[in-house]
Amino acid sequence: MKADIITIGDEILIGQITDTNSQWIAEQINNIGFEIRRIITVGDDKEQIISVLDSIINEVNLIVITGGLGPTEDDITKQVLAEYFNSELKENKEVLEDVTNFIQSKGFKLNNERNRKQAEVPINCKILRNKNGTAPGMWFEKDETIIVSLPAVPFEMKELVERKVIPELKKDMKLPNIIHKTVLTYGIPEAFLAEKLSDWEQNLNDKIKLAYLPSPERIRLRLSMICEQKKKAEEIINFEIEKLKSIIGKYIFGYGDKFLENIIGELLIENEATLSISESCTAGNVSRLIASVPGSSNYFKGGVVAYSNEIKNKQLKVSQNILEKYGAVSKEVVEAMAKGQRDIFNTDYSIAISGIAGPGGGTMEKPVGTTWIAIAGKNKVISKKYTFGKRRLLNVRFASSKSLDMLRKFILGYYE
Amino acid sequence: MKADIITIGDEILIGQITDTNSQWIAEQINNIGFEIRRIITVGDDKEQIISVLDSIINEVNLIVITGGLGPTEDDITKQVLAEYFNSELKENKEVLEDVTNFIQSKGFKLNNERNRKQAEVPINCKILRNKNGTAPGMWFEKDETIIVSLPAVPFEMKELVERKVIPELKKDMKLPNIIHKTVLTYGIPEAFLAEKLSDWEQNLNDKIKLAYLPSPERIRLRLSMICEQKKKAEEIINFEIEKLKSIIGKYIFGYGDKFLENIIGELLIENEATLSISESCTAGNVSRLIASVPGSSNYFKGGVVAYSNEIKNKQLKVSQNILEKYGAVSKEVVEAMAKGQRDIFNTDYSIAISGIAGPGGGTMEKPVGTTWIAIAGKNKVISKKYTFGKRRLLNVRFASSKSLDMLRKFILGYYE
Repeated sequence: MKADIITIGDEILIGQITDTNSQWIAEQINNIGFEIRRIITVGDDKEQIISVLDSIINEVNLIVITGGLGPTEDDITKQVLAEYFNSELKENKEVLEDVTNFIQSKGFKLNNERNRKQAEVPINCKILRNKNGTAPGMWFEKDETIIVSLPAVPFEMKELVERKVIPELKKDMKLPNIIHKTVLTYGIPEAFLAEKLSDWEQNLNDKIKLAYLPSPERIRLRLSMICEQKKKAEEIINFEIEKLKSIIGKYIFGYGDKFLENIIGELLIENEATLSISESCTAGNVSRLIASVPGSSNYFKGGVVAYSNEIKNKQLKVSQNILEKYGAVSKEVVEAMAKGQRDIFNTDYSIAISGIAGPGGGTMEKPVGTTWIAIAGKNKVISKKYTFGKRRLLNVRFASSKSLDMLRKFILGYYE
Repeated sequence: MKADIITIGDEILIGQITDTNSQWIAEQINNIGFEIRRIITVGDDKEQIISVLDSIINEVNLIVITGGLGPTEDDITKQVLAEYFNSELKENKEVLEDVTNFIQSKGFKLNNERNRKQAEVPINCKILRNKNGTAPGMWFEKDETIIVSLPAVPFEMKELVERKVIPELKKDMKLPNIIHKTVLTYGIPEAFLAEKLSDWEQNLNDKIKLAYLPSPERIRLRLSMICEQKKKAEEIINFEIEKLKSIIGKYIFGYGDKFLENIIGELLIENEATLSISESCTAGNVSRLIASVPGSSNYFKGGVVAYSNEIKNKQLKVSQNILEKYGAVSKEVVEAMAKGQRDIFNTDYSIAISGIAGPGGGTMEKPVGTTWIAIAGKNKVISKKYTFGKRRLLNVRFASSKSLDMLRKFILGYYE
C-alpha cells in the first residue's frame, strides 16, 4: 500500500514555518503498513494543487492532505477539492453544530459569515467531525484511491488522524499486520548506541526492521515486523528485546511512547513518594514536564524558579556565604538548593538545577553550557556537573532531561 | 523566477526526522526573489528521483536538491544525477584534496574505498567545494534551469548555500526584490480578525500578498510585495500597516518574528522593572517562556510553582482561610498569589495563574479549563477568569500566552 502526503500552505514555501505535520503523519501511516512515497508541499494555489493531485492520484492508494482549510481568503483547499471531485459545497448540519459549539466555547457567537462558511462541505465526501476547531476533515474516494483532507493546526489534525483516519483506514483497506515495539533509551549518544548494538543488529531476525529515532529527550529504537500471526511475531520481537536488555539495559528507561517524566510519575506513585523542583537555568521547564503528566498533582508539590541569587537565598535558604564563595553554578549551591527545597516543601525527593544557558554569562572556568544538577532523597544528596553546548534553548532541554534521568536512577538505586 | 526544492531521504518518509533543511533553503532563496513552487521529499530511490526531476525540470528556473550524497550504499543521488545529465563520474583532484583534508582533520586516514569515492563527480557539473564534509555540492545547467545538489548535513548545506549558491544565483539570474513585513497579533481568533480586516483586505494594494499564520501563541499577518524599488515598496507596505493599526491596533503586539515574551522583555527593560511569576496549572511554563529570552535574568527574578495548596500557603502567604473558602481556582486565591509573589520576591510586577488543566479535577461549577489569571503591579491587582478547553497541554499553552498578554496590556496601561 502506497501513500503520498500533501501539505498546502504558502507559509511553508517561503520558509516561515517548518512543516512538522508531514513527519507525524508519515510515522502514523507507516506504522499501520503504508509505504510513504512522496511528501509534497504546494502553496495555496488552485492550479498547483490540481496539478499535484493529477500527477499522483493514480499512483498511490492513499493521499493525506493538510492545510488550507481555515476561514480566511487565502485558504482554498476545500473549494479546490470540491471542484476536483466534481462536487459542490453545501452547509452541513452536524458541522455547523460543531463550528457553533467551538466558537461558543471560546466565548464568541457565530455571527460571522466566514465562520458559518466553515460548515459548508462538498456533498460527496465523508465528514470527519472536528471538535477542536472550525475545519472538518474530509474523506474522498476516487477509483482505488482514498483522499483525506485535514486541517493543518497540529492538535486538530492529530486528533482526527488518531480518532478517525487510522481506524477507518484499518477497516477499509487490507493492510498488512505490522507489529512495532519501541525501546526507549537515554544517556548514550546515537553513534555509541549503534556501535554497542552492531553485533546484535547483524544477527537480528531478518524479518525485523530496525529504526533509530533520536532526540535530546530520548533515543527510540523501533523494531517493526510484518507478520501473519501477531502472537508469534511478538514472541520473536520480545526475544530480540531480551537480548537488547542484556547489552544496553542500563540505558533503557521504558517501552512504547513514554518520556522520562511518565516513568518518574509511575515510580513516585509506586513508592508513594513526593517531589519538588528548584530550577535556575531551566526556569520552570522541568516542573512543566513533570506536570505535563495527568495526575501529577498526586506526587508533585511544586517548586521554585530561582532565577536570581536573592531567591535562592530567600526561598531555598541557600546561604549568602556559599553563593558568594562558590558562585550560583556550583556543586555547593545546587546541593544546598536541593536540600533546602526538599525540607521547605517537605517532599521525599527534590531536583535542583543551576547552569549557564547562554548566550551570555560564560567565563573561562565556567563556559556557557556548564550545568550542575543535584538530586536529594530523604538522607542523601548527589550531584553532577555537565557541560552542554552553546545554544540556550538546547541547553535547557539537555539539562531538563538529564535531571529527570538522574532522578529516575536515584529512585531505582543506581547511585547506591 | 520559480524554484522547487527536492529532499532525498528514506528517513524523512518514515517520519524518523523532520526535514528542516527545506524550510531554511526556502527562506534563503525566497529572500533573494525566487517564488518557491513546491517542496518534494522522495526516498533514496532512482526511479522516484528521476520521475520527480522529469516532472518539474521544465517548469522552474531553479531546483535545489539535498540529501543522498553520503558514503553509504543507500546514498545514490550523485549516480542518479550523473546518469540523468548524461555524464559520468570521475575522480576530481580538488574534491579529493577536500575529502582527504576533512578526513584527516577528524584524526582518520583516507584508506577507505567509500570515502575515496566521495571525490568522484559528474564531469559536466560545476563543483561547489565543501570544507565541512566529504560530499561536494554540484551545480548543473539544463536548458534554462539550474539544478544544485547539496549534502543534507545542515551546517554543510548552509555554508554552501551562503558562500556559493546565493552569490552565484545573484550573479547568474535577473532576480526581483521581495519585501516581507509581519504584523503580530494576539487575543482575537483568526476568523474574527479576518472579518474585521475584510474591508482593509479588499482595498489592499493589489501588489501586496497577505497571509494569516495562526497558532495558540500569536496570529501573524504577513504582507509580501515584489518590487523594483525597495524603498517605494516599503512605503506602500507601511502605509497599509498604518491603516491596519487603526483597525486592530489593540491586538497588535509587535512586528517581525517575536513572541509575547520578547515584547515583555523589551517593556520591562524600558521601564527598568522586574517580574516574578507564580504558577499552579501552568507549572513553570510561563517562567520558562520568559526565561527563553536571552538576557531575561536582567528583569526576571524567578517564581514559585505552587502546585499544591500547601505551597500556595507556605511560599506565597495565601491564607488557609481564603484557600478553603474560595478554592484554589478563584479570584481571591489568584490575586493573593500575585500579591504574595510580588511582595516576597520584591518585584514591580507579578503574574499568578491557577486553573484546572484536566483531565481530572473539574466540577460542574468549575469545569476543566477554568483558569484564573492575576497581574499585580506596584499598587494594583487585576484578575480575569477564562474557560479554555478540555486538553491539558493546550490549556497550559492558552493560559500561558493569555497571562503574558495580560501583563503586556497591564504594563501599557490598558487596564487603567
